[in-house]
Amino acid sequence: MTHKMIAVLFAAALTSTTCFSQATQPAVAEDFKPSTLNQPGQEYPQVNSQGYARFRIKAPKADSVRVSLGLGGRGGTRLAKGDDGFWTGTTEGPMDEGFHYYHLTVDGGTFNDPGALNYYGSVRWESGIEIPAHDQDFYALKDVPHGNVQQILFPSKSTSTSRRAFVYTPPGYEKEKSKKYPVLYLQHGWGEDETAWSNQGRANLIMDNLIAEGKIKPFIIVMTYGMTNEVKWGRIKDFKIEHFQTVLVDELIPYVDANFRTLANRDNRAMAGLSMGGMETHAITLNKPDVFGSYALLSGGTYTPEELNGKSKAKLIFLSCGSKENPDRVNKATADLKAAGYNAVAYVSEKTAHEFLTWRRSLHELAPLLFK
Amino acid sequence: MTHKMIAVLFAAALTSTTCFSQATQPAVAEDFKPSTLNQPGQEYPQVNSQGYARFRIKAPKADSVRVSLGLGGRGGTRLAKGDDGFWTGTTEGPMDEGFHYYHLTVDGGTFNDPGALNYYGSVRWESGIEIPAHDQDFYALKDVPHGNVQQILFPSKSTSTSRRAFVYTPPGYEKEKSKKYPVLYLQHGWGEDETAWSNQGRANLIMDNLIAEGKIKPFIIVMTYGMTNEVKWGRIKDFKIEHFQTVLVDELIPYVDANFRTLANRDNRAMAGLSMGGMETHAITLNKPDVFGSYALLSGGTYTPEELNGKSKAKLIFLSCGSKENPDRVNKATADLKAAGYNAVAYVSEKTAHEFLTWRRSLHELAPLLFK
Repeated sequence: MTHKMIAVLFAAALTSTTCFSQATQPAVAEDFKPSTLNQPGQEYPQVNSQGYARFRIKAPKADSVRVSLGLGGRGGTRLAKGDDGFWTGTTEGPMDEGFHYYHLTVDGGTFNDPGALNYYGSVRWESGIEIPAHDQDFYALKDVPHGNVQQILFPSKSTSTSRRAFVYTPPGYEKEKSKKYPVLYLQHGWGEDETAWSNQGRANLIMDNLIAEGKIKPFIIVMTYGMTNEVKWGRIKDFKIEHFQTVLVDELIPYVDANFRTLANRDNRAMAGLSMGGMETHAITLNKPDVFGSYALLSGGTYTPEELNGKSKAKLIFLSCGSKENPDRVNKATADLKAAGYNAVAYVSEKTAHEFLTWRRSLHELAPLLFK
Repeated sequence: MTHKMIAVLFAAALTSTTCFSQATQPAVAEDFKPSTLNQPGQEYPQVNSQGYARFRIKAPKADSVRVSLGLGGRGGTRLAKGDDGFWTGTTEGPMDEGFHYYHLTVDGGTFNDPGALNYYGSVRWESGIEIPAHDQDFYALKDVPHGNVQQILFPSKSTSTSRRAFVYTPPGYEKEKSKKYPVLYLQHGWGEDETAWSNQGRANLIMDNLIAEGKIKPFIIVMTYGMTNEVKWGRIKDFKIEHFQTVLVDELIPYVDANFRTLANRDNRAMAGLSMGGMETHAITLNKPDVFGSYALLSGGTYTPEELNGKSKAKLIFLSCGSKENPDRVNKATADLKAAGYNAVAYVSEKTAHEFLTWRRSLHELAPLLFK
């Protein structure tokens, strides 16, 4: 991976810390409802119809409680203490649609919001909040046939461990006992792990809904830990792909092909990743062009015709990002690839940044294009 | 379920709040290591070879930080603030072996320890800590063939939702395409949910290890939410079994039998539960004696010959608890059942209370007895 690519990823991540809409602010609508990602029975945090978030934290003897989300000057949204010992506050503006990680700072310490569910990001289990998106239907839990998400533990000699992966098998997998399926290997970003795509990413529900609508041919998705967090964020250029490449290509893929009913060939095997998972996808697909037939980088860089030259030709190259990242770069790279004769597709998620709604939408756009 | 049974469960739960060994205390050994349930890279909480736990929390401007675990007077272990802004403290005595839930109280608010992984208990995601048990080998992650834990979403007309369950399929399930398996339906306790048995319970690893040792015939385990938390702890006697019974018997079991390779008959179907899950098992097995062939109550009450009289005879009745609960009651009930001609087995977990090591061990004892 190049230094240029790293610089772009950094820029994208920094841009995304401003996760507010830029429009002038109307009066705050008092129609707040509990976030859909709250712990059972918890009333807070809440979200209103405009995308404002409101927090309420019990800490009667604290001197200061802050939420890492929001404008509110540097340091997020400062909560104010009420006579009842609860700290409350509302973001100064509406948030971008979709999923956001956050945490609290209580008297200088970092804690999670006890009202919210936790999601692994920033190399810790963070609180999560969901701003309902206008297009949330595509990742909603609906009354359609559902695939399963399986935790597998696969042997890894190179790391002397049993390693964990999650495998999405589509609806009908258990019943259609002789059918074989293509496989997408799907990677999380830096600070995240193998839980991200099925928790905050809702990959299984996106697939279930696409399959129910007849929009895609069912396939398997495999999600494992990309070992990305073994370097600190500021030292990503020191990341070496070889360790993870060995786990993925020499250990996980043979295990999946032996234990699931896969179409075990290049044309029916794809790799995709978000952010640093895109950097991994970029490196591994170029190193192993006979293993994967289709590649997708979600807010995770681009390919050039030059670096693809002389290798087995990709069936599909998919590049995406949020409109608040660097869409020009994605569009330009895609145009260059097309001009060089590649089947390249660009997708830009409107009004989103370096966050999970960009990647949910990217998967939703990518899936129908794969394994044709 | 009877008021007597509820009283006994309450007594057990109250007893278990003292989770310390009673022996005189030696000097604290300074061989503390990070708990095995810490978040990646986190040094604290730590545990020493005697079972003491040590905590370290950053909260430079807090006035008070307490851990809910430990003697330390009422309210757990009080931490002391250092000049570096970190609060530290060690439990006043060694803890019982095994898994414990806990949380922090920071300036009067309830938060989780940012160093520890979270586990659903007490109707919230709590911090977890693990005191290594002398017999921990039976639930360790080893280099043996591993089964999978699948998240399924099954349709439930009675609750108008897609409901979640986890299904353990044993190693080889994917490869042996014509083999059919018995099924154990395994319930969590009050305050917990369908994640408990595979997270804090390590049910999948217990099974993998027993199968690798040739000690059991492989079977499937199904774990779903028992709807137990819809009543408050103090109002458990108001709990109505009918809603969950409908979900389990009329919705989940047919779905599992249609989508997994099960031996779909009474003799090859068992139900077990811990604590309030035992109360559910007791009620449902008596209401539906032709659905389940074997019953197990783990710290979850007993059966009497009278209430079983006139129903299809159970192949096995398994009753267990920790030695710090009420083993006499379990032993007496088992003796009564045996005297009445039932195949009843009692198991008492030594030196444990109403906590998960009792239930891990109970599953380890139960599994070899099932489906003979």
